[in-house]
Amino acid sequence: MEKSSISKATLGRVPRYLNYLKELSLENVPFISATTISKELKLGEVQVRKDLAMISGAGRPRLGYETEVLIQQLEDCLGYNKLTNAVLVGAGRLGRALLQYDGFQHFGVKITAAFDSNHKVLNPDAETVILPMNHFESFCQQHEIRLGIITVGEGSAQQVCDQMVKSGITAIWNFAPCKLQVPDGVLLQNENLALSLAHLRNQLSRHQAF
Amino acid sequence: MEKSSISKATLGRVPRYLNYLKELSLENVPFISATTISKELKLGEVQVRKDLAMISGAGRPRLGYETEVLIQQLEDCLGYNKLTNAVLVGAGRLGRALLQYDGFQHFGVKITAAFDSNHKVLNPDAETVILPMNHFESFCQQHEIRLGIITVGEGSAQQVCDQMVKSGITAIWNFAPCKLQVPDGVLLQNENLALSLAHLRNQLSRHQAF
Repeated sequence: MEKSSISKATLGRVPRYLNYLKELSLENVPFISATTISKELKLGEVQVRKDLAMISGAGRPRLGYETEVLIQQLEDCLGYNKLTNAVLVGAGRLGRALLQYDGFQHFGVKITAAFDSNHKVLNPDAETVILPMNHFESFCQQHEIRLGIITVGEGSAQQVCDQMVKSGITAIWNFAPCKLQVPDGVLLQNENLALSLAHLRNQLSRHQAF
Repeated sequence: MEKSSISKATLGRVPRYLNYLKELSLENVPFISATTISKELKLGEVQVRKDLAMISGAGRPRLGYETEVLIQQLEDCLGYNKLTNAVLVGAGRLGRALLQYDGFQHFGVKITAAFDSNHKVLNPDAETVILPMNHFESFCQQHEIRLGIITVGEGSAQQVCDQMVKSGITAIWNFAPCKLQVPDGVLLQNENLALSLAHLRNQLSRHQAF
């Protein structure tokens, strides 16, 4: 697989490619071209070509991609064949909603455990265990967790982030509305829901002003 | 106020500008320059200059911005002085988490009511009323709602979207993992949480492969 990063937009189209390819008979369609896929899915050919090149490299001249191999590569891209375990810290309202959200597994991520400083917090669905913070480091090390989700408040987010880094986590998805400091080599992705909504509201007021 | 759209990044810095300015004494600091603000907040001067130009226009030569006016404009930008009412459809897990999320009001948005096809769904905190869908259109029209949040599943998202448009909503924040069709003039912002997490996971596996 290529080492360059797959954009979020490309990743978003992967499930569509996969659904389409999986409906084909491999016997009848052993090879498939970007042109065919783009026509069938009504997507721009240049876009499909770029997406597939990113995920699978160049297709064979005049033949295109080997269908079975392409399916495998698209599945790898979505993590189908290797679920990544994640932990979540902060089992408040947003944290519990994420725990109960079904969509992550479709994209190859499973939230294995959640942690909260208040260990009496109960997960209403009891699908994921909620543990006290003093178990955090040993749990992450034992289960080789590399991905952490922060859903605590602004006040304790940096402390949680430091604890994650110390426990071997190298990719952090932060929902706290603040800037976190991470050492080089640790990936940080911020998700500010309030900001997204505010942005939409702002566009709305400008829109109405015309 | 300028009519051009304020970027999400700029919007994200507005609370910091505001916090800083509000600590100043207006008597002692009647005017303030982008240079001073950038130094105090340790932000790039060009960035601060661009942000303030977008929100308040050009400052006065040698004086900068009138502090009191700038505060007012930054507050307007965050909707402090005019709360925008929104409705949410789909009081499932994610919907209820958003209802209970405190952050939106800080950015000038209040979720006034939530709707669900299952009108027996209860909001555990009972702060926002959950109404049956047959009240949707009349509620939106009566309260002049322009902003709608979709947190239903993929299967009913388009139907809810159509109902929103019919009820006068012109800005939609969609959490359902599917493409929605909206007429011209309706703003649509998609939020795919699973995709965000998948993107981070993908970066993580590439990162580890090095």
